[in-house]
Amino acid sequence: MTNHVITVTLSESKKQKPQSDQLEFGRVFTDHMFVADYCEGQGWTDHRIIPYAPLEMDPAATVFHYGQTIFEGLKAYVGKEGQVLLFRPEENMRRMNKSSERLCMPAFNEEIAIEALEKLISIDKDWIPVTEGTSLYIRPFMVATEPYLGVSPSKKYKFIIILSPVGSYYKEGIHPVKILVENEYVRAVAGGTGTAKTAGNYASGLRAQEIASKKGYSQVLWLDGVERKYIEEVGSMNVFFKINGEVITPILNGSILEGITRKSILQLLRHWDIPVVERKISMEELRSAHQAGTLEEAFGTGTAAVVSPIGELNWGDDIMVVNNNQTGELSKKLYETLTGIQTGKVEDSFGWVVEVTDTVKV
Amino acid sequence: MTNHVITVTLSESKKQKPQSDQLEFGRVFTDHMFVADYCEGQGWTDHRIIPYAPLEMDPAATVFHYGQTIFEGLKAYVGKEGQVLLFRPEENMRRMNKSSERLCMPAFNEEIAIEALEKLISIDKDWIPVTEGTSLYIRPFMVATEPYLGVSPSKKYKFIIILSPVGSYYKEGIHPVKILVENEYVRAVAGGTGTAKTAGNYASGLRAQEIASKKGYSQVLWLDGVERKYIEEVGSMNVFFKINGEVITPILNGSILEGITRKSILQLLRHWDIPVVERKISMEELRSAHQAGTLEEAFGTGTAAVVSPIGELNWGDDIMVVNNNQTGELSKKLYETLTGIQTGKVEDSFGWVVEVTDTVKV
Repeated sequence: MTNHVITVTLSESKKQKPQSDQLEFGRVFTDHMFVADYCEGQGWTDHRIIPYAPLEMDPAATVFHYGQTIFEGLKAYVGKEGQVLLFRPEENMRRMNKSSERLCMPAFNEEIAIEALEKLISIDKDWIPVTEGTSLYIRPFMVATEPYLGVSPSKKYKFIIILSPVGSYYKEGIHPVKILVENEYVRAVAGGTGTAKTAGNYASGLRAQEIASKKGYSQVLWLDGVERKYIEEVGSMNVFFKINGEVITPILNGSILEGITRKSILQLLRHWDIPVVERKISMEELRSAHQAGTLEEAFGTGTAAVVSPIGELNWGDDIMVVNNNQTGELSKKLYETLTGIQTGKVEDSFGWVVEVTDTVKV
Repeated sequence: MTNHVITVTLSESKKQKPQSDQLEFGRVFTDHMFVADYCEGQGWTDHRIIPYAPLEMDPAATVFHYGQTIFEGLKAYVGKEGQVLLFRPEENMRRMNKSSERLCMPAFNEEIAIEALEKLISIDKDWIPVTEGTSLYIRPFMVATEPYLGVSPSKKYKFIIILSPVGSYYKEGIHPVKILVENEYVRAVAGGTGTAKTAGNYASGLRAQEIASKKGYSQVLWLDGVERKYIEEVGSMNVFFKINGEVITPILNGSILEGITRKSILQLLRHWDIPVVERKISMEELRSAHQAGTLEEAFGTGTAAVVSPIGELNWGDDIMVVNNNQTGELSKKLYETLTGIQTGKVEDSFGWVVEVTDTVKV
């Protein structure tokens, strides 16, 4: 694909792998990682797979002070015949470069990124869990490393990929969650960094999430930062509503992240001839639909949960129970189809799934 | 002050100190740093001054992915009699704890923080430059270190203080700068993290700053994220306008940082009986004042530049030249008084200056 050399240094000792049924999300990491270095004037150099180990970073590195950091998240699955499958990795790498532009960070060649992650996965293939619902979570990220306290884009970066075997998001099967509509805090605003997958958006959301958790809600529903009326995202997921037979998701307005699961669901719905529209949708409209009995389903979408049904929405004094707090038919069908395609159990007529072919000889 | 033990491990070799007249901002660091570790359930432990060295951080550390990081900035000066002076350090440590609350990070005892920085400065005292306009820049910061990819507050942190001898902000004396009013990008919005000194706010501002620089402007003027009408900050400084004899600065509205220089300038102006008001001020109002000839002065305020006069504002098609592109009388008086107090040359009738007394026996 490219003639870029990725050197490999294998770990001398292998870590003990966790049991499939005891896996959590993002706590355990595999034996190796991919790293490349960037220096202004030289571009990206020293592409290497090395043993997973702490990074050495100057205390003055830009990432610690001015937050120049972006990331992606995707998953690898083992298919029926033992093949390793990725879901639309080119979409993640394309988005990563959109994020890097917003944060004044350098682009990373998308083909080399995919080559690097395929090679890394091949080396740590034994770490991919096979139990139903488990997967290998892949975290590519880029951080600014120049030791300089002036507020300006760093001249040095690291691009890193780490891997983490993760458990089933739904330990007891897919089930609806309770959501608190957030009226005080704001995740992002047009003109800010909401469309980029960058650290600051997540740091900003922690406080509201913490308050919601204490009240017994699993996520917050974010409203727009300007009018505080229109629905944007739920937790760190995109959000969909089925009202009177039509599926609605907030249109990408400059502060909403362009989710790859969101995009795939839009494609699936159109393929199934289910009416679907991307447009502004307000909490007032949602409440009216609920009162009229036409709010049929609501769900979040993202890489971690794929589809996360919403069973209850709390907006100030209003409690809106959706579909009797049961997983809706469409939510279930979308979840099963998408996870089926991702794991190779359902035919992929969209060309979304990529088989990892780089079997490294070691 | 406290009975907290700060251990000291001195560097075996000393780095070469840069010449005073060649100092830049934030590129060179002293021989030592202060570090303390936090772990949920244990609190802050292992307070230590050690040789300045890279940090070892797990690639999955929260700071790299979800941006839980806050910082402060202040300066130390050498006074007439060789004494080391700090300017309102308790204000920085108080603000740091306000920032940490917004970012779901642990508080750090303010007295211990000041004790730590006094001790660190005493050890690296020879690094404080003495040439007019130079100083020792102090950067306390806190980063989240737990190796976990779930989006939730980290359970582990490091609090670190590093020191950097810095050059004069105005190499050729205080002079007015050109500012571009930013209409596309937004620094922060109410409900976001604008009032906290956290990385995401700075990452968000880089792109607009880069575009402005290419057009020949030294900073951008940030407008509010809701109506895009009201003035918030200039670059990473607070901003003041003198209109028809009255000084106006944007009121702290939930997205503006509460600057310590801003606060000191408000106190100085009130002390001098100069009319001053904190309120909303729009670009429309500023343009009207400029057209009427009543916009007498404009300046940014912050730790780095102290007072930075604005000579020209570009708002779309309007170019507004302020005070014939000359440093105004009030800007100059504020700059000279504040830097005079900070360096011990002007009597401090406010009790702002703290002399570093912790002379460590080594």
